[in-house]
Amino acid sequence: MKHLLFLFMAFLLNTAYSQNIQSPSKKISVDFKLTPSGQPSYAINYNSKLVISESTLGIKLKDKPALDANFVIDSVKNSSFNESWKPVLGEQENIVNHYNELIIALSQKETHIKMNLIFRVFDEGVAFRYDFPKQKDLNYFIISDEVSQFNLTDNHKVFWIPGDFDSQEYVYNETLFSEIDNSKLNLNNGIGVKSIAGKYTVQSPLMMKSPSGLYLNIFEAAVVNYPVMHLDAAVKNNKLTSHLVPNAIGDKAYLQAPCVSPWRTIMVSDDARDIVGSKMILNLNEPCKIDDTSFIKPMKYVGIWWEMHVGKSTWDYAGSQNAQNSLTQDLIPSGKHGATTENTKRHIDFAAKNGFDGVLVEGWNVGWEDWFGNWKEEVFDFTTPYPDFDLDVITAYAKSKNVKMIMHHETSGSVANYERHLDRALELMKKYNYPAAKSGYVGKIIPRGEFHDGQTMVNHFNFVARRFADYRLMINSHESSRPTGYSRTYPNYIAAEAARGNEFNAWSTGNPPMHETILPFTRLLGGPMDYTPGIFEIKMSYYDKSKTEQVQTTLAKQLALYVTMYSPLQMAADLLENYEKYPDAFQFIKDVALDWQDSKYLEAEPGDFLTVVRKAKNSEKWFLGAITDENARKSEIKLDFLTKGKKYKAIIYEDAKDADWKNNPIAYKISTIEVTSKSKIKLNLAPGGGTAISFEPIN
Amino acid sequence: MKHLLFLFMAFLLNTAYSQNIQSPSKKISVDFKLTPSGQPSYAINYNSKLVISESTLGIKLKDKPALDANFVIDSVKNSSFNESWKPVLGEQENIVNHYNELIIALSQKETHIKMNLIFRVFDEGVAFRYDFPKQKDLNYFIISDEVSQFNLTDNHKVFWIPGDFDSQEYVYNETLFSEIDNSKLNLNNGIGVKSIAGKYTVQSPLMMKSPSGLYLNIFEAAVVNYPVMHLDAAVKNNKLTSHLVPNAIGDKAYLQAPCVSPWRTIMVSDDARDIVGSKMILNLNEPCKIDDTSFIKPMKYVGIWWEMHVGKSTWDYAGSQNAQNSLTQDLIPSGKHGATTENTKRHIDFAAKNGFDGVLVEGWNVGWEDWFGNWKEEVFDFTTPYPDFDLDVITAYAKSKNVKMIMHHETSGSVANYERHLDRALELMKKYNYPAAKSGYVGKIIPRGEFHDGQTMVNHFNFVARRFADYRLMINSHESSRPTGYSRTYPNYIAAEAARGNEFNAWSTGNPPMHETILPFTRLLGGPMDYTPGIFEIKMSYYDKSKTEQVQTTLAKQLALYVTMYSPLQMAADLLENYEKYPDAFQFIKDVALDWQDSKYLEAEPGDFLTVVRKAKNSEKWFLGAITDENARKSEIKLDFLTKGKKYKAIIYEDAKDADWKNNPIAYKISTIEVTSKSKIKLNLAPGGGTAISFEPIN
Repeated sequence: MKHLLFLFMAFLLNTAYSQNIQSPSKKISVDFKLTPSGQPSYAINYNSKLVISESTLGIKLKDKPALDANFVIDSVKNSSFNESWKPVLGEQENIVNHYNELIIALSQKETHIKMNLIFRVFDEGVAFRYDFPKQKDLNYFIISDEVSQFNLTDNHKVFWIPGDFDSQEYVYNETLFSEIDNSKLNLNNGIGVKSIAGKYTVQSPLMMKSPSGLYLNIFEAAVVNYPVMHLDAAVKNNKLTSHLVPNAIGDKAYLQAPCVSPWRTIMVSDDARDIVGSKMILNLNEPCKIDDTSFIKPMKYVGIWWEMHVGKSTWDYAGSQNAQNSLTQDLIPSGKHGATTENTKRHIDFAAKNGFDGVLVEGWNVGWEDWFGNWKEEVFDFTTPYPDFDLDVITAYAKSKNVKMIMHHETSGSVANYERHLDRALELMKKYNYPAAKSGYVGKIIPRGEFHDGQTMVNHFNFVARRFADYRLMINSHESSRPTGYSRTYPNYIAAEAARGNEFNAWSTGNPPMHETILPFTRLLGGPMDYTPGIFEIKMSYYDKSKTEQVQTTLAKQLALYVTMYSPLQMAADLLENYEKYPDAFQFIKDVALDWQDSKYLEAEPGDFLTVVRKAKNSEKWFLGAITDENARKSEIKLDFLTKGKKYKAIIYEDAKDADWKNNPIAYKISTIEVTSKSKIKLNLAPGGGTAISFEPIN
Repeated sequence: MKHLLFLFMAFLLNTAYSQNIQSPSKKISVDFKLTPSGQPSYAINYNSKLVISESTLGIKLKDKPALDANFVIDSVKNSSFNESWKPVLGEQENIVNHYNELIIALSQKETHIKMNLIFRVFDEGVAFRYDFPKQKDLNYFIISDEVSQFNLTDNHKVFWIPGDFDSQEYVYNETLFSEIDNSKLNLNNGIGVKSIAGKYTVQSPLMMKSPSGLYLNIFEAAVVNYPVMHLDAAVKNNKLTSHLVPNAIGDKAYLQAPCVSPWRTIMVSDDARDIVGSKMILNLNEPCKIDDTSFIKPMKYVGIWWEMHVGKSTWDYAGSQNAQNSLTQDLIPSGKHGATTENTKRHIDFAAKNGFDGVLVEGWNVGWEDWFGNWKEEVFDFTTPYPDFDLDVITAYAKSKNVKMIMHHETSGSVANYERHLDRALELMKKYNYPAAKSGYVGKIIPRGEFHDGQTMVNHFNFVARRFADYRLMINSHESSRPTGYSRTYPNYIAAEAARGNEFNAWSTGNPPMHETILPFTRLLGGPMDYTPGIFEIKMSYYDKSKTEQVQTTLAKQLALYVTMYSPLQMAADLLENYEKYPDAFQFIKDVALDWQDSKYLEAEPGDFLTVVRKAKNSEKWFLGAITDENARKSEIKLDFLTKGKKYKAIIYEDAKDADWKNNPIAYKISTIEVTSKSKIKLNLAPGGGTAISFEPIN
């Protein structure tokens, strides 16, 4: 349902220099003006309080005059938009897209170049983009820099990770804005490839909280044919400026008019739940371009994966990542290879028995002998299995058990190689009936000199989604640039990692308890994350007494993550035998839904806690997830989201009384009670803990 | 037939520091030694006369100590090799590969890195390469520079073109070595993308003649997974040093041991015919890796191509190369589009009538609206025809006439885009029964920052050959890096342009008359060239009176090029109607063979003249081609190559008495005489002229 509420256009004289636009609720207001030098600028008020002070905008071009001064306003167009649309898979069945729009058509004196600025003001925030219309004075152009300012009004609390061109797999730092400083970070953090841009460069989405309690978030949407935007922090004066990721020769973006930049977004609210629950980023993307989306289905899966992370088996057949020109030499099996036909069958059996949709197998294909760290171009061909992985046998077995196999495409960063093998890789998937693949980009990028977050790679990730769509296949990318809502347009791009996932807990300094309370305010705004929760054997000393690494949550919190960490693709990441040890807790993972009719964020504070309830699509079942950081937390939840008059059985999975992420993480208790929409439930979260609840209507 | 004549190994003490090896005929001798600093060096004598004075060798590594000093000799191995092999297509049915080999195993003190130098000494020259064996102290490595010297002994005459990372489409300069200077060149030469490396950098193959009359040629063979080597000339002291083409970030080559560098070759003879007829470059490549080569066939073809060069029609449907985001906009036909179904049928008719194998059509596919000069990534998809080019109709029509269509893949330098569409492009070729494609690389390379001659692109060209082989298809690349014999290994890489071809005569300063007398000493050493000869309407004023451009040969020389310019793929490049005007001259193009049992270079002087006779494979027919530069030339040729006792009808196509490339280029005469192996024929070549003769046995 799409209905333009009203539309009016006002053509002003060239002397006009300022414009104002408000959100539908009028809480948010944007002031646009041209500075005396003719540079575009904007400021944002929230409830009449300045939250972004005058911030200038501009684009610098290679071999052409900069588009940052000498502009005049040619025309101004105001409009309003209010629709709702149905995502193929999502947190809610209907998403409302309601905003007021202001299009300011600018032209530059002397060059005659036309550039529009488009503002969209939603109730939870502001978006703007640069728009280059078709024109005779600008056809092909190269962006050498974007200088979009986001000038803050105070020394906010900030949840930040360093501005790295190659990785977002960092733990968040919670400091004052003035304390941002990449040089003080411990970089012994398990990240494979790091390219930190500068001492004061941070990544977006950047979540902040003002001293007066306002929540702000700076991000971007619809990053298509453009590099990722990081942010340079002027730590002494609370200013942020866009920092685009360069390509191999230092250019930022190659464009051809007509074209647009991504949307730059500033969310603001006095209620953190407005931000964590916002669909603004998705709304700013193009509608779905896949005609028949029936192949796009949620998947709950197990896999041959965590066993490699804990050191029980290896990705590679020969058990040694030190091969020389390995594709041409005979491999001697080590006996520790994880991706065997037998092990895969065991996982298929488990999936079938427990109602899982899929089985992921990593390490199935030749190349893992020396896949990492050598900047090697031709590592994998994506089609040749190891001798102990029988595709025919596995495909037949999976089919007999009604389980789908999930393909794995590790590229080791060699994108050139992946692209030239992609059609063949996807033909193989179709031949063997794989509906989805997980991809990986661990390593320095090839074409050499490119970064994971540059325009070339952004285009690659989007291209891969489109090519998978050609074959009616789903893709879940790891180590990709972080999503900015492209899954609205290509919903077969079903999930991504693109942040520090659960795996880091197995072999690095790990993810501190507050980590999962921040991700929904940052990474998840752009799209689903394949965080791979569900680790029951929390401590790595279980596998090797000398190890001190551990998952930095309680077991109950691992369950809660299936609800707090939205994704239509969810892994039960632990070893099968660990689930068999705790079948009562495992029941929640078996039960929890993946696709939702509605979601309600009940409690939210970035870095501290999050409580969300979701109603399964085409079902009367609800699920609750509540998590906390390193601090224990008590709260009381009203169940008024439940259907009035209906009775529900609530199965509560919570931390045991003495549970604690560090010293007693596995201790949980499960209780069942009867509730209605009038009930309240007391949540009692251990340090690093969580609660998961399933609500099942009693007929 | 392969037979090792003898093999002996000599393990010497570490104190050994010098070695000598001679060619089978003993004319050429190489002295290898370690310098006092432990750097490898070599010198070459020809008939006991020094022709390459002591020249040092070394490899510089990124982030590792250089491999240019502190070496000791671990062992030395001598062997001899004499075999003959049969190329699938070639200048002769059997190629003799006869050389003596010296392998010097070196190891570097302190680093313990092992590096071998392998010398092969043929009767017409010397080849050496760096060899990195499998070893624990060197696995992955990055070459930051190669410093191979080629120190000359005098201020030779040199035929040189500037060392350009992106193009070899230059006219040759004939100067003294001391006069090499790129800054003095006229660069208004029609070349689209130029990246000249330095003032004194030149390209190989570098053809030279010493003051005493020795011919020298420096080149390379088997450039695989390595960049092209240019040469830095120290013009004051007659020295040359290797200059590898860098990648986007300045690195030269990414290698993994075991591996080898390309061969560096130094040919030397007192007879220029030994060099022009040498098969040393092919011999230094790996044998054929295609099991069933039956799909590889010579092709004589016409095409929709020259009409665009002369301005009669356009590549693009809309006739305007100024589109904006053209793939999404409607194209308005200009009426001047060359690649129409009707025009293609006309060419198929002509090909069928005149016994040609194929028809090339350029401009058949969407993208030509703005294909050039914009560094645009997604120009072509290689599968979408323009609305006026009906693949189904054309394929059926060609089949009915027993003519093969030749596909065209212009990439505009966007290799990333080509690779990700390549499987689809080749599937289309199979579907529509195209046995071969011509590819083009006009434009700056994407991945951006890469050059046409860097390792990435060398790998691309070789990859394309292999992928075409997967589909049993042939490829003819234009604007690729110049071949170095890879067509021995993948003979479906049937031809390449990779030098200044005939097309430059249509719209630039053109190719001076001496051009075609140099190419066989340079470009053609590495493999067949698709020069596209056969232009009968020599002057562009024929099409447009205001034009002064012209083909800088006589018509008779255009015929002779079919023999002097070896290629199993030969175009009759002119418009069909021009052939219909001169049917008697056209008869030679119809008659001339493409694949040869034997070839004999009768007369050769680089930059001046060339006379060659070739015997068609599986036939008693011979063909002669003789060309000269801007000077008229007379000579007498003995026909003792003909089979003794047999009578032949010789049809002589020669310049008319008053012919002259500049003022009277079309004037030719044709005569038929009867000859035997005892006959002689007087050749009489006009300035810029040539003679072509077909010898047909009289039964």
